[in-house]
Amino acid sequence: MEFKAQDIRIFSPATVANVSCGFDVLGFCLDTIGDEMVVNTTPKKGIHITKIEGFDLPFETHKNVAGVSAKALVESLNLDFGFEIEIHKKIMPGSGIGSSAASAAGSVFAINELLGKPFNKTELTKFAMKGEAIASQAEHADNLAPAIFGGFTLVRSLKPLEILEIPAPDNLFATIIHPQIEIKTADARAMLPKHIPMENAIAQWANLGSLIHAMHTSDYELLKRSLHDAVVEPYRSQLIPHFHEVKNTALNAGALGSGISGSGPSIFVLSEGLETAKKVETAIRKVYKATTIAYETHVSKINIQGMKVL
Amino acid sequence: MEFKAQDIRIFSPATVANVSCGFDVLGFCLDTIGDEMVVNTTPKKGIHITKIEGFDLPFETHKNVAGVSAKALVESLNLDFGFEIEIHKKIMPGSGIGSSAASAAGSVFAINELLGKPFNKTELTKFAMKGEAIASQAEHADNLAPAIFGGFTLVRSLKPLEILEIPAPDNLFATIIHPQIEIKTADARAMLPKHIPMENAIAQWANLGSLIHAMHTSDYELLKRSLHDAVVEPYRSQLIPHFHEVKNTALNAGALGSGISGSGPSIFVLSEGLETAKKVETAIRKVYKATTIAYETHVSKINIQGMKVL
Repeated sequence: MEFKAQDIRIFSPATVANVSCGFDVLGFCLDTIGDEMVVNTTPKKGIHITKIEGFDLPFETHKNVAGVSAKALVESLNLDFGFEIEIHKKIMPGSGIGSSAASAAGSVFAINELLGKPFNKTELTKFAMKGEAIASQAEHADNLAPAIFGGFTLVRSLKPLEILEIPAPDNLFATIIHPQIEIKTADARAMLPKHIPMENAIAQWANLGSLIHAMHTSDYELLKRSLHDAVVEPYRSQLIPHFHEVKNTALNAGALGSGISGSGPSIFVLSEGLETAKKVETAIRKVYKATTIAYETHVSKINIQGMKVL
Repeated sequence: MEFKAQDIRIFSPATVANVSCGFDVLGFCLDTIGDEMVVNTTPKKGIHITKIEGFDLPFETHKNVAGVSAKALVESLNLDFGFEIEIHKKIMPGSGIGSSAASAAGSVFAINELLGKPFNKTELTKFAMKGEAIASQAEHADNLAPAIFGGFTLVRSLKPLEILEIPAPDNLFATIIHPQIEIKTADARAMLPKHIPMENAIAQWANLGSLIHAMHTSDYELLKRSLHDAVVEPYRSQLIPHFHEVKNTALNAGALGSGISGSGPSIFVLSEGLETAKKVETAIRKVYKATTIAYETHVSKINIQGMKVL
């Protein structure tokens, strides 16, 4: 392919992974928070990060999540030109709502658009996993899948990579609260047991099966009964101050369910209807307001589309 | 309620529990094999087993699975009369396709029909669990749920009892092979580990979530990819001679998937279309034909209705 001057501006959404009983497999996509990227073609081969706004991230392509994923895509083709990437980072790194995934997915989505979409969403996810790996020391698709596919996604298998798009009820909204403490993904991972009680595992898959059924039947009450994590939350919630208070406050405000977003510290809440999601937001802000912990909240419809061209 | 002479003849179907990745929660209902029962009202209070054909089972109400469940139902009401039950047992006890569940569910279904259906299906399952408990030393609903509700069922929770009806694709057929060896449920249970590796548990719930999605979308290929049991089959398959040969033979004959029915020794196979299910039957019969083990096979459409009045 030969050089042609082109540019694109995209929105790369924040995402929630490890959705309750769907630990390690189920995620969903947010709408009101995400990064923006501007990508343009350049006669100079390779990937060049030209601007980073919002947070302090490396400009070196091989150290930058967006750079690594873009490089993986570009190197799979035979191009006579390259790309320049501007990153307008809005998702705070380490917040637990897929900051690195938004970077990794955004660059490959934008470049794929500029090239006339040679790759499908699963292929884009594979390239993005290369970038995600340098942020989290493991190739995973927990946040990439919902960012790239939109809506709710279930990663059935990593090898081979298989991502299922799970329908979500129309009126489902998320409230996110990000208490601004630091949790190292490595720590969150190390504290999980290597073996779990059979009975907890059975409860977990009973709930995940029910949750998928609830999504297909738009059964909010069943969704509520299914949104439990018997396996991971009892451990990781220890790393998040006031987790149980936030969760109980959200449920008392009418939420369907709540859990740790990714490996934290953000906490997600799912509600039926925007009004309830906002009521939940008001209620859970009060929990951290009474502390010295800084926090940020977002209310969002489930983003069915995922990545967007702006 | 006062005595009125009435009788009913019903079909109580065989069922498959522990469907692959749905261990302990997912079951389905068969159509071509099941018990028959004739139940009539009698002025004499209580439950009276008057005839048992097919297999040698106790006539004493408190020792008979169908008697115990029927007694639980009748004792919850204030009746001036009782019921006589004839059991035409066709499902061999210990075969792994819900023989005791068919007994326990059949009597309560028949009596509920005679009484004008005072109880819903979940309530009937609860009564039937009392009978099932004397056969298996534990109250469970793995086989009762599909027998009473029909189709595929997911038992989300035992306390409180919550059973979900999962839609099945129209053209799904089961092949059952019953190698006539004895497996004690207690042995099958004792050999399972109390703790399982986290990664196997995650694979299991990824597959169950995918399986439920496949059922809703009639996606046979996804059904095929999801029908795996990473947790229990590696243990229990050791109790069933030639299990892996049967499974591989079935898959080679075009089946979607195969696994242990209940706690064995029966093996179930799921296929798209009657023709494939019959081809599978022919192929897997040859496995046991080459041995000294007696065996029996059944081919059945998924029985959406469950219990039937004849």
